[in-house]
Formats: sequence, structure tokens, C-alpha cells
Amino acid sequence: MRVIPLGGVGEIGKNMYVVECGDRMVVIDCGVTFPTPDQLGVDLVLPDFSYVRDRADRLEAVILTHGHEDHIGAVPYLLRETGHVPVLGTRFTLGLVRGKLDEHRLLAGAELVEVRAGDPARRLGPFAVEFLQVTHSIPDCVAVVLDTPAGRVVHTGDFKFDHTPVAGPRSDVAGLARLGERGVTLLLSDSTNAEVPGMVRSERTVGEEFRRVFATARGRVIVTTFASHVHRMQQVLHAAYADGRVVAAIGRSMTRNLNIARNLGYIEVPDQTLVSPKEIDRHPPDEQVLLSTGSQGEPLSALRRMALGTHPLIQVKPGDTVVFSSRTVPGNELAVNETINRLEQVGAKVVTQESNPAIHVSGHGRAEDLVWMLQLVRPRFFAPIHGEFRHQRAHRELATGLGIDRRDVFILANGDVLEVGEDQATVLDRVESGITYVDSFGTSDVGEGVLRDRRHLSEDGLVLVITTVDAREGTLCGDPDVVTRGFGAADDQELIEMIRLEVQRSVEASARERVTEVDLLQRQVHDAVAGLLYKRTRQRPVILPVVVEV
Amino acid sequence: MRVIPLGGVGEIGKNMYVVECGDRMVVIDCGVTFPTPDQLGVDLVLPDFSYVRDRADRLEAVILTHGHEDHIGAVPYLLRETGHVPVLGTRFTLGLVRGKLDEHRLLAGAELVEVRAGDPARRLGPFAVEFLQVTHSIPDCVAVVLDTPAGRVVHTGDFKFDHTPVAGPRSDVAGLARLGERGVTLLLSDSTNAEVPGMVRSERTVGEEFRRVFATARGRVIVTTFASHVHRMQQVLHAAYADGRVVAAIGRSMTRNLNIARNLGYIEVPDQTLVSPKEIDRHPPDEQVLLSTGSQGEPLSALRRMALGTHPLIQVKPGDTVVFSSRTVPGNELAVNETINRLEQVGAKVVTQESNPAIHVSGHGRAEDLVWMLQLVRPRFFAPIHGEFRHQRAHRELATGLGIDRRDVFILANGDVLEVGEDQATVLDRVESGITYVDSFGTSDVGEGVLRDRRHLSEDGLVLVITTVDAREGTLCGDPDVVTRGFGAADDQELIEMIRLEVQRSVEASARERVTEVDLLQRQVHDAVAGLLYKRTRQRPVILPVVVEV
Repeated sequence: MRVIPLGGVGEIGKNMYVVECGDRMVVIDCGVTFPTPDQLGVDLVLPDFSYVRDRADRLEAVILTHGHEDHIGAVPYLLRETGHVPVLGTRFTLGLVRGKLDEHRLLAGAELVEVRAGDPARRLGPFAVEFLQVTHSIPDCVAVVLDTPAGRVVHTGDFKFDHTPVAGPRSDVAGLARLGERGVTLLLSDSTNAEVPGMVRSERTVGEEFRRVFATARGRVIVTTFASHVHRMQQVLHAAYADGRVVAAIGRSMTRNLNIARNLGYIEVPDQTLVSPKEIDRHPPDEQVLLSTGSQGEPLSALRRMALGTHPLIQVKPGDTVVFSSRTVPGNELAVNETINRLEQVGAKVVTQESNPAIHVSGHGRAEDLVWMLQLVRPRFFAPIHGEFRHQRAHRELATGLGIDRRDVFILANGDVLEVGEDQATVLDRVESGITYVDSFGTSDVGEGVLRDRRHLSEDGLVLVITTVDAREGTLCGDPDVVTRGFGAADDQELIEMIRLEVQRSVEASARERVTEVDLLQRQVHDAVAGLLYKRTRQRPVILPVVVEV
Repeated sequence: MRVIPLGGVGEIGKNMYVVECGDRMVVIDCGVTFPTPDQLGVDLVLPDFSYVRDRADRLEAVILTHGHEDHIGAVPYLLRETGHVPVLGTRFTLGLVRGKLDEHRLLAGAELVEVRAGDPARRLGPFAVEFLQVTHSIPDCVAVVLDTPAGRVVHTGDFKFDHTPVAGPRSDVAGLARLGERGVTLLLSDSTNAEVPGMVRSERTVGEEFRRVFATARGRVIVTTFASHVHRMQQVLHAAYADGRVVAAIGRSMTRNLNIARNLGYIEVPDQTLVSPKEIDRHPPDEQVLLSTGSQGEPLSALRRMALGTHPLIQVKPGDTVVFSSRTVPGNELAVNETINRLEQVGAKVVTQESNPAIHVSGHGRAEDLVWMLQLVRPRFFAPIHGEFRHQRAHRELATGLGIDRRDVFILANGDVLEVGEDQATVLDRVESGITYVDSFGTSDVGEGVLRDRRHLSEDGLVLVITTVDAREGTLCGDPDVVTRGFGAADDQELIEMIRLEVQRSVEASARERVTEVDLLQRQVHDAVAGLLYKRTRQRPVILPVVVEV
């Protein structure tokens, strides 16, 4: 049996794991992540699917642990490359996948197989797959148990041990313990919060805090959280009801997910508590709650537009309380900060996790949760997954602290092939892995070369030089033209004139040497202008020399 | 008397305040800040100096509170615009300013006036200026007291109340109290940590933690901190000496500032404790400390290069302990995170403020420090400065909590003119203010238009279309050429061919209508190609149509 991460180790997001037995394989999770600021013009970052695509005929199924973007977001892109393959997931997870496939026009041909935690094992070629309930920050999360002739693998998905969840069953502690009794060859377990000591609080504690905040807020309350956090929405609804407030959902993804959750029975709306944003102003401010997107400061989100006064329906007013029931994903700090300042400028009171730690809780178990998982499952081998390298390393320390041999713990890199037998495991090989950039069009790949060019253009801009030369003599016909975009010294007429003169000089020198080949002329013009600009401005814009022969 | 912030309110960095009395003025502080990721190709962000430049003949002096970049970094740029004007600062502050002016070749003509806290008042036209000692995270910080016929203004600079500073005198509590007795018309006070309850710890506590960390580290210790944090360096030196370790400074700014501090007598180097990076390997790893730049994950910093294995002298090794004795400035989270992961991957143990809060302390007072300042100075009017809007608002809450009338507290915006008399203060007017972008060359301004172009180029890249047409007929001569940079679909030959055809179609249509004017032809080609590309790829690259008439 071989386990190969193609995403999800040493990084946040785009989780994807391949498990192979003989020449058959399954994929566990298939997520996306979002670009960093230097990935210019990129909209999504996907795992590189080459390994799976080239072996698509061996693929038994795609198995999903839960419905977060970093676990399901790349499913349509994968299916487009592999062709037909069953997708297994729980009801709520498939509810979200369905919407995605529909957007990509892949729903008609898709085979979505609904599974339930506790169902009897399902055969997929040499694999028998079972699911165990775990708790996290979205409904219907499962751990995946794969039985193969070569041993048993458990993949925890994302999890925490929440013994008092807001809705739905608890983590199946007994099931995990039973697995431990039966014997587990390899455990893959979520490392995200491995550095944080203690156990994570129950989701329920956030609801208690909502009640306190709602009860003391004199005006309207706006709560922003992740749009997939159905239990958080549930608690907003309950706390609003308890405080005699109505709730309106604002923002496309919030509204959509609330509807999906409602239709599938994952959320319970207290009587007459939910109203439309258009109707909410029939109620006085201190009887209103808005549930909004924008917890990451996204420029087009409802909250940001409300803060800027550009939202068509809702404006933030003095006396409003805005609750960020979320953590700021690394990289979004400046955007969130700016949103908070805008909200305070229009007179709102802002509550964040920094000023009130009880207002949010993570869906990922902390160190003691992870120790519990290891204690229950008692695996022969262990691979910490999810999170960055530092988190996986901290998770390894937790495991060795429990007496697990350091040599039996594998911190894998994406592409590593971990060969696992009953009593031995080794990283044998490395397969192609990496990232694929997707831009707004959704299909076209953005390569590293294109990104390099964009970075270069974004630094010092562009200088375009157009020259017409006599085809036979190589001499200039008329003055060169200079066009710039994003070039800092564009208004410096003296400099532009110097560029023209430099181009003339360069072309004339070539003409004297009887150089008439356009490529060569262009290269010479490029170098002459680049040299001049660097000397005069210390800048290195992209220089495009156009030499037209007439 | 008028007080005008031109930077430093509602934002971090580029602090600059103008105080006017009659037709004379002084400037307090003149700092820079660093660009956000969407300020492409920008190296520094300065205050807009227009207001001061247009009144340069009225300017008595530039007064500096301390030597941090966000308070002194723009001095050379200002002096270049105003011409000769005295610059007042303490010894260490001027030591840093001197280096800057030298780099800008402005040192010869500059008048640097060294001042000391506690000196008798110095006359500057209608102003009498005095300085009071305050503690912060760089030596030789002062608050500025300006006496004018129209009242007394106190500007705290950046401060905390550190009653056990590592070196140098304490904050002059008695002097502040005396001011309070004499009467202060307006207090401008640092708001950075107004949201954080309690008092900030003494800098000395970090030194105590260094001793614990150094004593328990089995191998080499690498400490990274801000290169201007002389007291932090001092504590590294003392802790290293106490643990029998030698210290080498790595990184240009660290080495330079250590030298300045040593030459001016602001740091004391224990016997034989400082060695050069080249010599340090003569000592065993557990007797080494490296003091390095790179606490913000800067790509070219010594620490980053050590982590990547690209530093010419030092490689990070398993068993090394890397101490981030710093906070992560918002916006640098991803870079710092990546550095930490790299360090852990090569086997180093990383200590950060998150895992060990004692390893760093802020130089800005918390809420209780700010309350002390207000209690000592007891101003008639109060303007919270520095930090973001949310911090100034929190600072206002602290002031009103002390019984200061809300109407006597002014949260100013940059450019606001606060007119202050003995018994009344109002925002009367607004003057030109804003930001100036500086790129690598240092002098050329980068305008908003240039930045907009760079953002556009960085999103979807560039498509250049070159067409030759007959000057009289407007008909095509030969096939159009298509050149792209940073355009995602550049490899799509079919699309490139479609662009060519579209250009032909557009030019031929124009020729039929007898359009031969180049500008018009270019506009038509632009629109035709833009339409095609958006339809086929949903992308909007910058399109540059070049029509050459022959």
C-alpha cells in the first residue's frame, strides 16, 4: 500500500491524498487554496493533478472528508481531467459539491455517492472504506478508514473533540477506540493547531458569548463569520431569538449556504427569526442581527461594502456592533484591519477575537485533542498532515511524547511515496507534484513564466519602443515612438527624448555595420534602452522593442 | 496656534506634524512607511509635503522625537524640497539622520542641532522648544514641548513608562507632572497600544528571558530583532556574556547600527564578547550567538538567506535555536511564516512571541501607560495620534474615562487644521495632504495612474499587436504580429491566430470606410482585440495596438 500526498502537507490548503493498493487508487479530498500577493492575477491554486490524471483508469473513487474549500474546491477541475469517477461524501458535503459541479456544468455526468458515518464498509476494488463521525467547523465531517489487504489507514480529516456540539453527533470516540483495538497501520492526522497547548473549547461556548453580546448591544448587531460555518449561523439564530431579534443573511455565499443547510435539514430556524435584508428595517435596530460575509476583509464582500457605504441595502451606522466571529487567515491582516478601521470611523463598535477571545473558536483540535486521537487510534505508523511544516513537527513531538518511536513518524512532503506494510513503512520514491494556477476564466493554466512576467511588469512597468527602418539599408525612417505603461518616469520628457536618441544611435550604428536582421536589431535596441534607463533611473521596466521594416 | 498632521493619524508610519504660530511653523517628525502589496514597485511611502514646501520660507525647524524610520525616514526628501532648515534631535537620533543625509548627499549643507532632554528652552521664532526624556524601543527618545504665545503643546513622540530601562534615563515623570502644573493647552499622545489593557512590561524582562533561553539552548542561538533596537542588542550581549557565548552581528543594518551605537556610547560591549561573523566558528556552537536582521521575513535579509542556505558565511544547522525577539508588522505574516517553516525544515528550534510571550515587549505604552501620561500632563485639549483610527478611538475612551470632555478630544485626519487657543480648539480647515510614492531611484514620484497601470499589467499581463498599413489606402501590409507578456493564454496558438484575424478584419473594415488616421485605427484595433479576448478568456490584459503607416 502506498500513500502519496499531492497537497496538504507543509502548507495550508489544497489538501489531496492518494492511497494506492496494487494498481488501484483512491483520492482523499481535493481542495484549493487562494493565491499569495505575489501570485499576480491568479484566482485559485490547485494541486498538480498529473500523477492522478496519468493513471485515471486506476482511480476507484474520490472520497471527501468534509465540505470546506480546501478539501473539495478542486473536485470539478480533477473530474474534468480524470473523466467519470464516483465521488463519495456525506450529505452536506455533497450538497456543496453539487453546487460547484453545476457551476462547472459537470453535474449531469457526475456520480455523487452519499455516505454516512457508521455505515457498513463499502467496497472500492481492493479497498473497503468506512466513515467515522468527527466534529469540526462545518456539519457532517468524517474520518476515513481504508482497509486494504496490506493494512488499515485512517485519515482524520479536519477535527476537534467537541463533546457538546451545537448540532449533529459528537466525534465517534468509541468507534476510534474500536479501530485502535482492531489495529491501525497508519494514521494521517490533522496538525493545524498542534502548537497550541490544551484542548480546544466547544463550539457551544461561542453561542453563549453571542447571547451576552446581543443582550448588551444597544443597537443593531452585525455578525461576520465564514460562510460555511453552519453551526455558527445556528448559534446566531438562537442567540438572536433569545434576545428578541430577527436575522437577515447578507452576501451571496452566506445566503446560498444558509439555504443549502436549511434545505438539507442542517439548520433550524426559530419561528419568524429569519427575514430578508429588505424587510429588516421594519424592525428597530436593537431587534436586528445581520449575518454577513466579509470576515477576511474581502474587497467585494457585503461587510466591506457596508463599511464603505457602497452596499445597496445596508449601511453601517453609529451604534452598530460588528462582531468578527472568525480568525484572520494569514495574509488577510491588512484587509481585515482596514475594514475594522472603516467600521469604527462610521461609529460602529467592533468586537474581534483579540478584544474578546470567546467570540470565536477554532474547528481544529489543539495539542490535547491530537493526543487523544493518537491514544484512541494507537497507530503502528503515523504521518502528521495538514498545516505547515512547523505544525507537523509539533505534532510529531506530541506523538513521540506518547512513546511512539520517532522513526515511525513520517513528515511527508507533497509527492513523497510512503510505502506501508504491516510492519514497515518507508518513503520509497517521489512523484510529480506541485501547484496549478487558475485564473478567472477557470480553465487556462497560468505558468511560472507568465507569473514572472507579471511580477516584472508590476515592478517598474513597461516601455515600448517602435522604430521603422529601411529593409535594405537598415537606416531609420522617421523618429522612434516611445509608449509607456506603469513606468514611473513617464512624465520626464527629457528622458523620453533621450530614449529616442538612444534608439536612433543604436539603429544607426547597426546600419553602419550592415545589420538589417530584425531580431538582431530589436535585441540591440532593447539593450541600448535598458542600459540607458537603468543608468538614469535605476529602474528595469520590461522593454519591448518593435522594429518594423519597410 | 494651528496644529496640522500631515501623516501619522489614522495609519501606521510616515508621522509628520506641523505646528504654526502666526506665520511661522515647525515640523515635528518626518517619517516614511513601507508599501502594501498593491502599491506595486513602490519602495517607500512618504507624506505629501506640498503644504510645507509651498511655505518653506516660514519653516523654523524640523524637530525629531526619536530615530525610527517612521519618524525620520523622510527627512532627506523634505530637506530636498524646503532647502536649508535646521534639524533638531538628540544625539542618537542625529547619528541615524547623519547616515541618511550622507546617502542622499545632503549632509554637507545640513544644519543638525543636537538637543538634550532637560536643556533650557530654545527659541525658534515665536516658539520656545524644550525636550523631556521618554522611554521607547530605541535610545534617546524625547517628548517635545512647544511654548507659544497662544499656548503650550506637548507631543509625546512614541513612549512607554519603563521604570527600569536597560540603559539611559527613565521617562521624566517629574518633568511631565511639572508641565501639568504649569498648564498644557494641547497634548498629542501616542495611541498605538491603546486597545491593550494594563501596563507594558519593562524592556529589562526580555533580557531576563534571553538568559533563560541561552542557558538552556544546547547549540548556537540566533536572535533576530529590529536593527534599531539598541537596548535589545545590549541585552543579547549581556545575556551572551553571562552564558559564556560570543556574539556576531549579521546583516548590513544590524552591523551599521551596532557601530553607530557603539561609537556614540549607547551600547556597552562586554570584554571580548563581540566577534566578526568570519571568526565565530572558532568557538563551539553552544558558545555562539548571532544577532541578525530578518525579523520581518524580508527576502534579502541575513536570516532568510541563512534559512535558505544562500548566505555566504552562515548556514542554519540542526540544533540551532532561532529567537524572533520581535513582533510581526501587519502585512509581513506570510513572509515571517515562510521563514519559520524553512528554519524548522533545516532542523532549527524557533522561538517566537507566540510560543514565548516573554521574548519580546512593545516599545509603546498600553492603556495604563497612556492613562498615566494623561494624568501627569492634564491637558486642556487632547488629540490622540499615531496608530490606526481604532487605536485613537480607544485612546479617546481612556481620556473620557478620566473625565476629559469628549468635545475636548480631537481625532484628527491628515490635513485637518486644528486651531487652538487658550480656551478653545476647533478643526477649522483642511489642507492638502496625502502620500507620495518613491521607487528605487529615490527621486521620481510614482503617481496613482502609474500604479493603476501596474495593477492592470499585473492582473492579466499584456498583449501587443503590431500592424503595418498603407498610409493612403489604410489597407494591411502583411500579417499583424502579436507579442504577449504575462498573458495566461499565450501558448494558445489558436487564440493568437484569432487575434490576428480580428485585427485584419478590423483594419479592413476601416479601410473600406476610408479611415486612415492612425489614432483611430489603433483605437479600433484595441477594442476589437479587447472584445475578442474577454469573450474567449474572460481576461482583460493591457492591449497595446501599434499601427505603423508605410
